[in-house]
Amino acid sequence: MQKSLSCEILAVGTELLLGQIANTDAQMLSQGLSELGISVFHHTVVGDNPQRLREAVELAKSRADIIITTGGLGPTADDLTKETIASAFGKKLELHGPSLKRLYDRWTFGKMTKNNERQAWLPEGCEVLVNDWGTAPGCAFEAEGVHVVMLPGPPRECTAMWKHRARPYLEKLTGGAIVSHYIRLYGIGESAMEDKIAYIMDNAINPSAAPYAKEGECLVRVTAKGENHDVAEEMTKPLMEQICSELKDFVYGIDAESLEEVLVALLKEKNLTISTAESCTGGYISKRLTDIPGCSDVFMGGMVTYSNESKMKLLGVKEETLKAHGAVSEETAYEMAKNVAEIMGTDIGVGITGIAGPGGGTEEKPVGLIYAGISYKGETKVYELPRRKNQSRERVRLLASSKVLDLVRRTVLGIE
Amino acid sequence: MQKSLSCEILAVGTELLLGQIANTDAQMLSQGLSELGISVFHHTVVGDNPQRLREAVELAKSRADIIITTGGLGPTADDLTKETIASAFGKKLELHGPSLKRLYDRWTFGKMTKNNERQAWLPEGCEVLVNDWGTAPGCAFEAEGVHVVMLPGPPRECTAMWKHRARPYLEKLTGGAIVSHYIRLYGIGESAMEDKIAYIMDNAINPSAAPYAKEGECLVRVTAKGENHDVAEEMTKPLMEQICSELKDFVYGIDAESLEEVLVALLKEKNLTISTAESCTGGYISKRLTDIPGCSDVFMGGMVTYSNESKMKLLGVKEETLKAHGAVSEETAYEMAKNVAEIMGTDIGVGITGIAGPGGGTEEKPVGLIYAGISYKGETKVYELPRRKNQSRERVRLLASSKVLDLVRRTVLGIE
Repeated sequence: MQKSLSCEILAVGTELLLGQIANTDAQMLSQGLSELGISVFHHTVVGDNPQRLREAVELAKSRADIIITTGGLGPTADDLTKETIASAFGKKLELHGPSLKRLYDRWTFGKMTKNNERQAWLPEGCEVLVNDWGTAPGCAFEAEGVHVVMLPGPPRECTAMWKHRARPYLEKLTGGAIVSHYIRLYGIGESAMEDKIAYIMDNAINPSAAPYAKEGECLVRVTAKGENHDVAEEMTKPLMEQICSELKDFVYGIDAESLEEVLVALLKEKNLTISTAESCTGGYISKRLTDIPGCSDVFMGGMVTYSNESKMKLLGVKEETLKAHGAVSEETAYEMAKNVAEIMGTDIGVGITGIAGPGGGTEEKPVGLIYAGISYKGETKVYELPRRKNQSRERVRLLASSKVLDLVRRTVLGIE
Repeated sequence: MQKSLSCEILAVGTELLLGQIANTDAQMLSQGLSELGISVFHHTVVGDNPQRLREAVELAKSRADIIITTGGLGPTADDLTKETIASAFGKKLELHGPSLKRLYDRWTFGKMTKNNERQAWLPEGCEVLVNDWGTAPGCAFEAEGVHVVMLPGPPRECTAMWKHRARPYLEKLTGGAIVSHYIRLYGIGESAMEDKIAYIMDNAINPSAAPYAKEGECLVRVTAKGENHDVAEEMTKPLMEQICSELKDFVYGIDAESLEEVLVALLKEKNLTISTAESCTGGYISKRLTDIPGCSDVFMGGMVTYSNESKMKLLGVKEETLKAHGAVSEETAYEMAKNVAEIMGTDIGVGITGIAGPGGGTEEKPVGLIYAGISYKGETKVYELPRRKNQSRERVRLLASSKVLDLVRRTVLGIE
């Protein structure tokens, strides 16, 4: 087997060293490099300081096959990445005509100031990476046995430049094509997931399978490398099927962004409508549903009934119910779900009530106690959500809203 | 003036190099070090690999006065930070009795496995940094003219350990006490803010003033160093007053976490209640209000009226209004705000309607066009929110919800 290439990610920017921003570019690039089978052994951050940048480049040259830099490509005197790196590799900067033209063409605020032209000066002999998402172009070259790729720092630009420019450049180096898919899971912990599929992951080299955990969810990335895209795509299939059949109903989507995206698509497909009645989550569920463009086809609206009065007035929850069982009770969740579906005339109604904390808990009804009602085509079921200790208010609310989205998905699909 | 101390932040963890998490510890520590007047010149990340960690430590020793490490203090064989760093400084690890006892005392799941004892082995002669937020203690020592501080990696633990353990340790090195306050601003851009207070910032050394931008808001950090806490606190006051009087109504809070926190506190203080009627923000505003513990004193509830039907049915928006002006119009926002306050019986009603994108825009009503109505004690005003091009749906909704929270704050305070 070929030795895998190694990469160092070198971020340039004093704002990182002052803690004004986190180095999310390095995270995004590391994920992408891992997909390509390229090993990342170092992240380094230096400020807008030519000497320390030069030292960092010399060190990276000595220990990595690939150097990816982020930041320092802009028009100001602080932006020194190209100059410093070109000089470390004995190269000059040259004015790149098409990039200069592009800068002038894209300029929309009055006359472009001269200093902006600096962005069109690029290392001699480099491959220019056209930036369709900002002003400063990136570039790539090979010298002294090292591949250097320079990308702009702003995360939105860096992400697009990685995907559409740097990734294809590096794919050529690694040979063949690489395809990755993400299997997204809800309702199973990372270690339980690993237990279930360890026997599959251990034997999977190409295609490979790697587990990730994130925000109360898990995912498995399946990556295959083949002589071309179609071959690699085909190679992922048996492994995907094997993992999905082992993890069954925990799988909520393939290559999906989120539970809400999958749920909105599912409701559209099934031609179902939904409405929400939220107490403890205070609009979090409707916010997440409406994060998805086009959700208006399925989401008719919701109510945030934070007080007993609003539960009675807007949702028609009975005063006796609130008196006998309290606002945080199975009975109240039941009425909230049932009534919101009726009032809004939707196929599905969601009701959620609980104690998000940090205050408001009692021995009988502790912080984290949450009931969710799901009304589906006239039938309403209530669930007590799993409770975890020592969670922040934000996390209690996030996990509760995720759980409800998954409960709706399972209800619609008829999964117990 | 004394030369300021320099620090390198060295993160240890393969999960960072795989892109499974972002290095938010480095951001948090960088902010904190900047407050202490300690310069950060490098962030470095290496994996759980003793050789590369050793090399990184040797390099950091050669160029920094202080090394802070994060991660690698846990019980597994991967956790090598203490061993590797102690060895780089010619130190041995010793079993620290109190830490061992603490581990056994805190253990709650059956019998503690032997490998957990590794966490109580610490470099000889170090100061133990007791971890009240997790299992692995941190430590600090001085050797070869360098101060080394080791902190656990999980962000929640790292943040608490910084605040309560490492910061006080480093404050002793820098001498005296340091006090920082944050002036939070809404409605002014970073460069406009800098223009206004440049003459103040340029002349402010101790106390100093530093600008930050974040998520559509700005803030100014004022930091003073004095012989003790009270002296430093007193020193910040004139500068705080000067900056606040220059930036006036843009200042929404001092040392506050967010607009919603300030607004909920203001409404409590003024004994006012609020309700919301949201279309394009889909519950984002009520979600943000209910992020604040105790908001139930002021927030009575809200409606998410995503369809025309729900605007009519729940809010009583007139069919003629929707027909004549459309759902996204001044008139609809007016009725939403006015009616929700009436229905919910609150002092304040908020109505918001607009086009969040990416689809749904027209020439006449483009993506980003948003109207907000604020009803206050029976009087309702409508505002067209500032529109920026090329923003994501998430950002359009975030900025719109922030703007509305600020509009309510200004309305209540009688600021134009």
